[in-house]
Amino acid sequence: MAQRIPVGLVGVTGYTGMELTRILAGHPGLELVRATSRSEAGKTLASLYPYLSGPGDLGRMGALTVTQPDPEDLAAACQLVFLAVPHKTAQEIASALIKKGVKVVDLSADFRLRHKPTYEHWYATPHTEPDLLAEAVYGLPELYRADMAGARLIANPGCYPTASILGLAPALEKGLVHTDDIVIDAKSGTSGAGRKASVGTLFCEVADTFRAYNLTKHRHTPEIEQEVSLLAGGPVALSFNTHLLPIDRGILATIYTRLVKPMTLKDVHALYAERYADEPLVRVLPAGTLPETRWVRGTMFCDIGLAVDERIGRLIVLSAIDNLCRGASGQAVAGANLMLGLPETQGLPTAPLMP
Amino acid sequence: MAQRIPVGLVGVTGYTGMELTRILAGHPGLELVRATSRSEAGKTLASLYPYLSGPGDLGRMGALTVTQPDPEDLAAACQLVFLAVPHKTAQEIASALIKKGVKVVDLSADFRLRHKPTYEHWYATPHTEPDLLAEAVYGLPELYRADMAGARLIANPGCYPTASILGLAPALEKGLVHTDDIVIDAKSGTSGAGRKASVGTLFCEVADTFRAYNLTKHRHTPEIEQEVSLLAGGPVALSFNTHLLPIDRGILATIYTRLVKPMTLKDVHALYAERYADEPLVRVLPAGTLPETRWVRGTMFCDIGLAVDERIGRLIVLSAIDNLCRGASGQAVAGANLMLGLPETQGLPTAPLMP
Amino acid sequence: MAQRIPVGLVGVTGYTGMELTRILAGHPGLELVRATSRSEAGKTLASLYPYLSGPGDLGRMGALTVTQPDPEDLAAACQLVFLAVPHKTAQEIASALIKKGVKVVDLSADFRLRHKPTYEHWYATPHTEPDLLAEAVYGLPELYRADMAGARLIANPGCYPTASILGLAPALEKGLVHTDDIVIDAKSGTSGAGRKASVGTLFCEVADTFRAYNLTKHRHTPEIEQEVSLLAGGPVALSFNTHLLPIDRGILATIYTRLVKPMTLKDVHALYAERYADEPLVRVLPAGTLPETRWVRGTMFCDIGLAVDERIGRLIVLSAIDNLCRGASGQAVAGANLMLGLPETQGLPTAPLMP
Amino acid sequence: MAQRIPVGLVGVTGYTGMELTRILAGHPGLELVRATSRSEAGKTLASLYPYLSGPGDLGRMGALTVTQPDPEDLAAACQLVFLAVPHKTAQEIASALIKKGVKVVDLSADFRLRHKPTYEHWYATPHTEPDLLAEAVYGLPELYRADMAGARLIANPGCYPTASILGLAPALEKGLVHTDDIVIDAKSGTSGAGRKASVGTLFCEVADTFRAYNLTKHRHTPEIEQEVSLLAGGPVALSFNTHLLPIDRGILATIYTRLVKPMTLKDVHALYAERYADEPLVRVLPAGTLPETRWVRGTMFCDIGLAVDERIGRLIVLSAIDNLCRGASGQAVAGANLMLGLPETQGLPTAPLMP
Repeated sequence: MAQRIPVGLVGVTGYTGMELTRILAGHPGLELVRATSRSEAGKTLASLYPYLSGPGDLGRMGALTVTQPDPEDLAAACQLVFLAVPHKTAQEIASALIKKGVKVVDLSADFRLRHKPTYEHWYATPHTEPDLLAEAVYGLPELYRADMAGARLIANPGCYPTASILGLAPALEKGLVHTDDIVIDAKSGTSGAGRKASVGTLFCEVADTFRAYNLTKHRHTPEIEQEVSLLAGGPVALSFNTHLLPIDRGILATIYTRLVKPMTLKDVHALYAERYADEPLVRVLPAGTLPETRWVRGTMFCDIGLAVDERIGRLIVLSAIDNLCRGASGQAVAGANLMLGLPETQGLPTAPLMP
Repeated sequence: MAQRIPVGLVGVTGYTGMELTRILAGHPGLELVRATSRSEAGKTLASLYPYLSGPGDLGRMGALTVTQPDPEDLAAACQLVFLAVPHKTAQEIASALIKKGVKVVDLSADFRLRHKPTYEHWYATPHTEPDLLAEAVYGLPELYRADMAGARLIANPGCYPTASILGLAPALEKGLVHTDDIVIDAKSGTSGAGRKASVGTLFCEVADTFRAYNLTKHRHTPEIEQEVSLLAGGPVALSFNTHLLPIDRGILATIYTRLVKPMTLKDVHALYAERYADEPLVRVLPAGTLPETRWVRGTMFCDIGLAVDERIGRLIVLSAIDNLCRGASGQAVAGANLMLGLPETQGLPTAPLMP
Repeated sequence: MAQRIPVGLVGVTGYTGMELTRILAGHPGLELVRATSRSEAGKTLASLYPYLSGPGDLGRMGALTVTQPDPEDLAAACQLVFLAVPHKTAQEIASALIKKGVKVVDLSADFRLRHKPTYEHWYATPHTEPDLLAEAVYGLPELYRADMAGARLIANPGCYPTASILGLAPALEKGLVHTDDIVIDAKSGTSGAGRKASVGTLFCEVADTFRAYNLTKHRHTPEIEQEVSLLAGGPVALSFNTHLLPIDRGILATIYTRLVKPMTLKDVHALYAERYADEPLVRVLPAGTLPETRWVRGTMFCDIGLAVDERIGRLIVLSAIDNLCRGASGQAVAGANLMLGLPETQGLPTAPLMP
Repeated sequence: MAQRIPVGLVGVTGYTGMELTRILAGHPGLELVRATSRSEAGKTLASLYPYLSGPGDLGRMGALTVTQPDPEDLAAACQLVFLAVPHKTAQEIASALIKKGVKVVDLSADFRLRHKPTYEHWYATPHTEPDLLAEAVYGLPELYRADMAGARLIANPGCYPTASILGLAPALEKGLVHTDDIVIDAKSGTSGAGRKASVGTLFCEVADTFRAYNLTKHRHTPEIEQEVSLLAGGPVALSFNTHLLPIDRGILATIYTRLVKPMTLKDVHALYAERYADEPLVRVLPAGTLPETRWVRGTMFCDIGLAVDERIGRLIVLSAIDNLCRGASGQAVAGANLMLGLPETQGLPTAPLMP
């Protein structure tokens, strides 16, 4: 496998970093040659994550020693680097790497919002790389595949936006629904909250309970509105709302819309099926079948289900993804595949862990 | 405690039956003297539920022998009977008991819909007790307290309707929101699905996943619309949607509405707080605090949280209950208390099990 | 209720503190008049725990303002104080309070080990209150009820020791088993790990997994051996081992012993039943019935089940408790009841939350 | 991929059947061409399991139509058949298939016990295929790799026995421990209980609780004793005990033994590491690291951790597997690989889903 393309990972201690190691451990075209962490540098990956051991690729990955995030070193070793660090930190590293000719997939929010003031408003911090912001490609293959292939910098979409945008795209592209009456009720597994020590995400604070959080204030709102507005051909303001599920992985977005004119489930389903007919990583489930988060667990699929409430003229779209795979690290690998000239779906898991 | 009022329970093998035993075990004014089950008659409650043993009331309840559901026997022994059996079955038993002068709290759906054809449409079965249907009182204390006190038959509200109606009542009574744009996104713990052997609710089919179910077809829709229409003073058709949570107990309803005119969170909160100021079993949480299902676990509280999305003119109401206690058996006991002249909240749990 | 005895709680932010508020909220004989926390002083309990609101006792408790832990103030206000703080800290506060004439129930490990060097070895810190150590009564009612009633200071037993000692007591008192071949395989819910922010007890690190921890090093080992040796009438060294369960509450100890001579399940069961016949808070389940942690959830019961493997001459004892209630705060309240001349079981929950 | 070897699966509706589809969907050397079910024949796999859809192998598998289990048809289409049906049923089908020249991997217990009377005693049913019983090879690669390669019929080991035997093998082979004092305290995820509709394994009966089951009566006892006796070179009777975990997948066996002579952890660890040095599917974790079920989730690894309690001369072995993969379907595929001349580990998952 000497011919695999060498890649790096900045930030290996969070859940998206962990998920990248899982995916890259089975990727035939990419080889992880650098994994960085300010706090864990000097240890092997196997000492951090004892499950990264055994024969073959898994053991080889486990033997990798974690390094400090040094752009010089990363650029010398890697053709492409994944950034799995908090926003703001990502800006600086991305800039340094790209200047050295390294391709970057940024999993943070730093390059997702095209409009600098919008970023600065929602994230309450200046954006110091406006040129890169202008250049970055939003890494959702179903919308930007061609641009991604030529990009130096991919802004990997947020987890909720991935589910929401893919759920809404056909309806908006075809003008099926009113754009001023969209409500997204989204629920996410707890890995979406990250791997920082915090009382609020302790087992005993999450298991056996359910709650909404961040209502009216979630930072994925402008990201969704940006892409949805482009799809709708005009500005869309919508209601985006988030809840915390007592599961590890998975997002289900229940999206409420109002049909412009009466349609049957069959009609809507046909349009959705047509829109995604050639997409390898979106599955429009049969009419009458509603998605479950476990059906996409560990995979790159976005599963879409539809319901039409003819009584009241509403279309309800259900969109399910694995927030760590399709909603973060798997999508980042799809982006890397495209940037590096590999098949888009290479190395990406598709068979879910059931049960 | 010889002076406690003797009551009976028809249907002890389901989760609502179990919850009734839990509540009645600590009730100072009611004594369970009959518990019936067609399949388990002849056993003691303790042999069915080994945790119903020990000293005092708990052990005395466990020593009770399960009987066949015989109206004659129930009427001889009980002043009031709780029906925790499926709809349709409840109609017949309710009628037989009331004829014998026994008060009845029916936990099934049989007497909740005032309009016979609506019942027959949604439940796909004839209603054979139209007189009782006309007489039955919908057992939500916050709306019908006085009527409940004088009733012979209480139709105990459904779990989702309890959360939904209490969440919407202040907004509708005061005309804050448009009645043609209401979406209820409700999530329930799995005990709501009952205690029948079924593949779909096995542990491995529910844990670590999340899904919607019954979209556009849930039988609680007409029940909610009936009460909400009365509150709004005109017919309301709304979008009611249900999801299955991997937790035992708890419902969270996230209710999306559109404000008639711009209001701040503070304004709306004041109106909600005022509406429920004297209600012992509804808590309007402080502005900015959102409810969690565990905060009401095992209790009779309906906890209400509010969010106003001023950007898009929407009021979001969050309503949390314990589906087995407030959403079923606890509310049934509140109804029984009122019917029997006891204090409404007597014997009802209020301190949640945390964590 | 002005006649309730005023008590205080030092350390309200952990799970044992929370559990004490839950129990005291429904206690007819005790009133919580002080709750302290260094980090949260100045807030009301309701602002810390929004579920501590509503009418009656629950709301009154929620209105209590958290204070700094000041022995002077505590002594002026309280007849008895519960200490729910880490070991070492407890020593100092206990001493100060007792000097001022306040009774103390210490939930930490500081006064459980009668032998000062053993404490200092296992807890790796000097014990600075040897006189109090000598005076303290180990607060397990089934063994020390009379002493507890007269105590100034109760050392509230650890969670694992409570389950283990109660499970072993009859077998050891009657000499049924070899004392040199005892293995305790214990499993605990995650609330036992406390409420500190920590990566290891995040939801995503505990849910959907299972692991042993602290093997051969758990600090409850000497506590169990101390009490078990007294029961056996000679020194016992045993194998005590702990595992972390993905549940909030509950301990199940599976205790493996070797019978001195062949016995049937019936024989052993009769001896266990006899031993605990008059105990209000221990339930020996019927022969053939094995305990579940949920059967004691939220309650003070210790449920004991038995199995005899006649093929190999082994007695297996299963002992289940709620680690927060019987294994900590509930048992502390039982101790307080005894110290204050109230009925031992007053205010203690017995009906479990099922499911 | 036309050159993949065609295989069949009898019994696709249980969890082991589901797991086989997951593994075979990614297997480069085997192709599932038949999947049978008496109750679901005529449907496609995708209609049973909507997640078996999408592009490539997954979608091709989903398009397969479920058939009745007809040996004639299976033999015509398949070189090898996996039996994922209950014991007793498996005997008959295995016999019919082998007569037609088809290789068989039986996941039931029918051919695991070499001694016919032992089978008939523990399974309470006659064994009607004594010749096949004598011929069958116990499919644990670490013990019987060579025999498996030449077998017509593999008896796929039980889940608990796999974990238990691999955990004990080095200690017994090297005579480190007394063979008359072995206690296995095993805990399994709920998928081990199968996919039949049953009240006892409903979500609300398993989540948030923990219990032992089948103590002294579990049918895996004779299977473990059979293999352990062979390893020890003489008859071993041990204490085998099982518990139900509120997780989907995973077994952790905590195995208590008594050392023949004092040894340090370092000594024992070296012997274990040496024993499994060349084994691709067993990982002896570093000394001091204890296994977790999630580290093997979805994989073929058996992870082993060790603890020596020098104080009391005990060796504790912890052995973790995924009960559905290593403990059933994955091990069956390893057996099939060997029987068909493919590399033993081909197509077997090794990177666990974390978290």
